[in-house]
Amino acid sequence: VISPRAADVIRSIRRGGIISRTDIARLTGWSRAKVTNEVNRMISAGYLAEVGEGLSHGGRRPRLLKLNPGLGFMLGVDIGATSLDLALADAAGRIIKRCAAAANMLDGPERTLQQVAEGGLELLRETGSRPEQVISIGVGVPGPVEFSKGVLIAPPLMPGWENFPIRGYLQETFPASVVKVDNDVNLMALGELNAGAGAGIDNFIFVKIGTGIGAGIVSGGQIHRGSSGSAGDIGHICAERNGPVCRCGNTGCLEAVAGGPAIAARAAAAARSGASPNLARRLEANGGVLSAEEVGAAAREGDRTAIEIIQASGQIIGDVLAGLVNFFNPSLILIGGGVANIGNQLLASIRQAVLYRSTALATRELTINYSPLGSEAGVTGAISLALDYLFISGQDVER
Amino acid sequence: VISPRAADVIRSIRRGGIISRTDIARLTGWSRAKVTNEVNRMISAGYLAEVGEGLSHGGRRPRLLKLNPGLGFMLGVDIGATSLDLALADAAGRIIKRCAAAANMLDGPERTLQQVAEGGLELLRETGSRPEQVISIGVGVPGPVEFSKGVLIAPPLMPGWENFPIRGYLQETFPASVVKVDNDVNLMALGELNAGAGAGIDNFIFVKIGTGIGAGIVSGGQIHRGSSGSAGDIGHICAERNGPVCRCGNTGCLEAVAGGPAIAARAAAAARSGASPNLARRLEANGGVLSAEEVGAAAREGDRTAIEIIQASGQIIGDVLAGLVNFFNPSLILIGGGVANIGNQLLASIRQAVLYRSTALATRELTINYSPLGSEAGVTGAISLALDYLFISGQDVER
Repeated sequence: VISPRAADVIRSIRRGGIISRTDIARLTGWSRAKVTNEVNRMISAGYLAEVGEGLSHGGRRPRLLKLNPGLGFMLGVDIGATSLDLALADAAGRIIKRCAAAANMLDGPERTLQQVAEGGLELLRETGSRPEQVISIGVGVPGPVEFSKGVLIAPPLMPGWENFPIRGYLQETFPASVVKVDNDVNLMALGELNAGAGAGIDNFIFVKIGTGIGAGIVSGGQIHRGSSGSAGDIGHICAERNGPVCRCGNTGCLEAVAGGPAIAARAAAAARSGASPNLARRLEANGGVLSAEEVGAAAREGDRTAIEIIQASGQIIGDVLAGLVNFFNPSLILIGGGVANIGNQLLASIRQAVLYRSTALATRELTINYSPLGSEAGVTGAISLALDYLFISGQDVER
Repeated sequence: VISPRAADVIRSIRRGGIISRTDIARLTGWSRAKVTNEVNRMISAGYLAEVGEGLSHGGRRPRLLKLNPGLGFMLGVDIGATSLDLALADAAGRIIKRCAAAANMLDGPERTLQQVAEGGLELLRETGSRPEQVISIGVGVPGPVEFSKGVLIAPPLMPGWENFPIRGYLQETFPASVVKVDNDVNLMALGELNAGAGAGIDNFIFVKIGTGIGAGIVSGGQIHRGSSGSAGDIGHICAERNGPVCRCGNTGCLEAVAGGPAIAARAAAAARSGASPNLARRLEANGGVLSAEEVGAAAREGDRTAIEIIQASGQIIGDVLAGLVNFFNPSLILIGGGVANIGNQLLASIRQAVLYRSTALATRELTINYSPLGSEAGVTGAISLALDYLFISGQDVER
């Protein structure tokens, strides 16, 4: 654990890769003597390493500094409702190894986190490293998180997870690590912010479309988590007054009307009604069940009904986003999540609805695209989170 | 114009009123020698003044510093569609004198800003001061602002204001001043943040209900202006598919359905249909025209129809806010603007709709209240803005 200003230094190195002592002085306001002292301290503690010499702007060539890559490893964990993604990265945040596994959050936190620990240990074994070398872990979970404590709060349909001490559980296996937990969509936004299409963008929204629909919000270059950690919970915005009942108990929620299961249900109904032979064939081949992915496959084959179902979903999502664009005025919306790859009609319909319904000024600088990181956004964001809190203990964390 | 770190010092003094040299060292990371140097420089330049001695924590008693109140004045300007509010404050932000006048933005920027300049000069005369003593001016305008340039962009119904150089115009009269311009609702939020119910609150929304409906957004303790300065433009969120046509050309916009004119129009129709003798009497007494204020007065007299009209408006506004609460997860919503004082039914209906439609987690820590600063929020925020940018030239401003 080091001082907040030293953490500034580390974060800055992380962005640029290297830093000079002059940069550090500018960044921290430290005097030249203090910079020398602190840098020596950080080198001898193993945080920083020298990397040759930079270009001179007159005078002595500056010796540059980088993070000591031998310092240890970071673990990025993306826990989905039915899957688990892990990445092992070096202390500079470069991903070295990855793995994925089926998982089920309904099994409860101990079983799932045991899988996480085993996966992490396996990745370490493959690189010939030990659990004590893990210095920071970022974890994404599909529910609202009390960020300062690293626990889930009031998670829907996730029995046993509420207030479960994820941090302490993982520290039993990785005793030298700082563990930070965040909502999965926040981490997708963070991944894009640090290593994707959101780099350098002050205000953007990441929209995850899957079984549920959620958003990660970046305001002023920072993740906006809201007052109780539930910011971005757009899946339960009312999209259709008197619409179908949502799993939350309310009616007409966005995710009940336009999420993956809604798409699949509409397609199954169309298949049974005879409106689409393509969907009917798929329904039969899959034992009477259709997934959103199957609807996407039918749409790619040109099936009119499948295309219309996807367009209707995009239109409804776009109508809700149009209001949020007026309110938040982002310059970028990234669409990700399991249902995002269902086909380009989805993106086209979302764009159309937003442009039609938002004010001209709010859309003047707005781009709407699929997330370039795609299914890797979550685990990339988890590594970003691990990096952001590297060397910072729980008690010191302010945001 | 002083350095960014020195501006930090000044902002910090502003919050606490006074500061010690030790505080300055902690705030800036400056060495003891540098603090001494910079403080001496700021005292001799007239920015800071000494204020006796603080409590000792062992050792020598610290000498404390405050802003030099004799340094000059600040002017806060709130330009409404039909009114003008001015406040003169000392360099510490304390309001000394105020005035208000009728104005009409439709007269164009030169006529309106001439009124502003004359009003400011009059306030100065009353305190025996000169225009050169104005060191900072904050201006609120009822439209979207490109904040870095201080100009209105694509303002609806405000001919001549687009890109008009407000800063340069006012500097002709107040040559020593920094001039910052912002959207009026952003300034109301800023006023509440610095001197009202928003103090110390990280995430809140100020909702102004008048002829139009707009919001000022605070995220992480900062005004969120969005990528093109139009954040908070909630008046044109769709509240009623196939609703009435809005002045923006779209249909069913929130302000077309629930703003002041919509309330007045519904009341006039009720008066003519015979549904409310009270409203009919008021309609006749006002020469066939009803204002939202008259509807409020009828409601206070217990008129059922007037109460229902206000409740319907509150319900519609609350439905839209419910979605924004899910998205943004604020801990506070403040309701202000000309129509806010129409009666408590409005607030009650807004609260009810938000609680009914937002998720339980998003409303767990949510308070919804009328703005305590009320009609003074705008000009209070304008002074806050002037203070925030005191001593900072346009070029140095990053946010």
